[in-house]
Amino acid sequence: MKAIVQTNPEDPGALELGVVEKPLLHPGEVLVKVHAAGVNRADLLQARGHYPPPPGASETIGLEVAGEIVDANGTEWTEGTQIGALLAGGGYAEYVAVPVGQILPIPKGFSLTDTASVIEVACTVWSNLAMEAGLREGQTILIHGGAGGIGLFAIQVAKALGATVAVTAGSQEKLDTCKSYGADVLINYKEQDFAEELKNQCDVILDIIGAKYLKQNLKALATDGHLVTIGLQGGTKEELNMGILLAKRLTLQGTTLRSRSLEDKAAIVADTVKHVWPWLEDGTVKHHLHGTFALADAAAAHRALNSGEVTGKLVLEV
Amino acid sequence: MKAIVQTNPEDPGALELGVVEKPLLHPGEVLVKVHAAGVNRADLLQARGHYPPPPGASETIGLEVAGEIVDANGTEWTEGTQIGALLAGGGYAEYVAVPVGQILPIPKGFSLTDTASVIEVACTVWSNLAMEAGLREGQTILIHGGAGGIGLFAIQVAKALGATVAVTAGSQEKLDTCKSYGADVLINYKEQDFAEELKNQCDVILDIIGAKYLKQNLKALATDGHLVTIGLQGGTKEELNMGILLAKRLTLQGTTLRSRSLEDKAAIVADTVKHVWPWLEDGTVKHHLHGTFALADAAAAHRALNSGEVTGKLVLEV
Repeated sequence: MKAIVQTNPEDPGALELGVVEKPLLHPGEVLVKVHAAGVNRADLLQARGHYPPPPGASETIGLEVAGEIVDANGTEWTEGTQIGALLAGGGYAEYVAVPVGQILPIPKGFSLTDTASVIEVACTVWSNLAMEAGLREGQTILIHGGAGGIGLFAIQVAKALGATVAVTAGSQEKLDTCKSYGADVLINYKEQDFAEELKNQCDVILDIIGAKYLKQNLKALATDGHLVTIGLQGGTKEELNMGILLAKRLTLQGTTLRSRSLEDKAAIVADTVKHVWPWLEDGTVKHHLHGTFALADAAAAHRALNSGEVTGKLVLEV
Repeated sequence: MKAIVQTNPEDPGALELGVVEKPLLHPGEVLVKVHAAGVNRADLLQARGHYPPPPGASETIGLEVAGEIVDANGTEWTEGTQIGALLAGGGYAEYVAVPVGQILPIPKGFSLTDTASVIEVACTVWSNLAMEAGLREGQTILIHGGAGGIGLFAIQVAKALGATVAVTAGSQEKLDTCKSYGADVLINYKEQDFAEELKNQCDVILDIIGAKYLKQNLKALATDGHLVTIGLQGGTKEELNMGILLAKRLTLQGTTLRSRSLEDKAAIVADTVKHVWPWLEDGTVKHHLHGTFALADAAAAHRALNSGEVTGKLVLEV
């Protein structure tokens, strides 16, 4: 089958359409013919060799798809059913093997391309905000990178949960976008110190920066606050003052979705479909599709995402 | 009334029996005549000026007592009832005001002195192991300072929950004590590197050390591991590698019991009584009373605890 292959491991841009083996199915997996594959920041890291697939996962890039079941492999599913799927890898291809616990229904009114743009972000945002940090009505959340794919989705989920939402972004244009999605407090990190603006006020922080913001995040957290770090765009190592952890009873947590067990992923998928899918269907949470590329143009999609000028999601169409 | 007064703020040993105002009762508080007051490591910190009472709390040292209700103050309680109490302060005295949410029953078969020796430790251990870290059957926990008052109690609660228990301590004698209370894995931190012995194996670590052990604790934690730090005997500042947090999906949490809200404390007290009191009553969890001092000899009790030679709890008798 056709799939995106990295022809030079030293060059993250060397992504070309090539031919690879069609995936073999393990028990409990179905074969899906891919119509659309979401592009994620983690895909850029994998192309740079920094985010290798977990043991047993496909070497092919791609963490989410939408398409059609073409081999139900003895499971309860029916061939011909259109579905979305959360993946540990393998999405940038004509076919992919999907554990049944990672199948999601197509939200009512959504195209396959729309669906492929929301799975990873919805599962990431719901699992971290609700399942890990326990964000609830009346609390305040700070979302770093508010205008990115995760940021815009997180703003809406947090508002739907009844929280006050603060965001950081690097331009007025991006902050205006955040505001249009519901953000209450807008902070331009190039001009303002978010830790001063939000000192001791944040019950939850959703962090994609890591080390560079650690001290400021600790300062911004309220008593019993919870920092969930899901990305390390600002590096990994920084001094931690554990005295602040005890004084404010803080929780620092690092999470990734991809490396979790099948059981964890199935639980996250089920809870996300239960809570977030109704919001997608009634318009409470809007997906933000920035644009589409042909599968063969994966390299161009990566360049676009890497430029930092993308607000929302990119999808590859097969 | 008589109470222990620190006559020289510069001298942590200047603790003398003096005369202070009897506490005024707020609504929802009862007045308790103290028969026994537990001595905690936090009391030593307070005498050194490092652990000031939270706003509104008594200036007098003392975080737990057992005694008799002498003024029910319009609450549902009856004067003359013997009870235990978790305090934000004020225990080293003849009388103390107690919010009703922080009253605990006397465990069947326990004296008042026994009771004053288990309240703070039971609430600390249960809230951190079960309510915060979610320790459960089949998991592995590492308890630093296994032979201290908190350590010996935590060993038994963890075993009662069905966990495998590893401990650190600084002598074979202390490790033998830990073993007699149920510890499965004994590590002499003067001779062994606990992080090497337990690399990637600990689901939960109960930590009283802080900075000095941070890197080793991260190494010892298993995937999805949870570090709960409740003391900083090894300092506050250390470099944190957040890459490890994400790679192993770790949680680092700092907690204290004393500074929590009345609502939090009432919830902790209720859950501790529900789960731990039956274990105290049927002998599953044994309290370890090291010795008693007269209230007037609080300074001697502090010197004894500070010596590091105490295994288990000290109690002041009024």
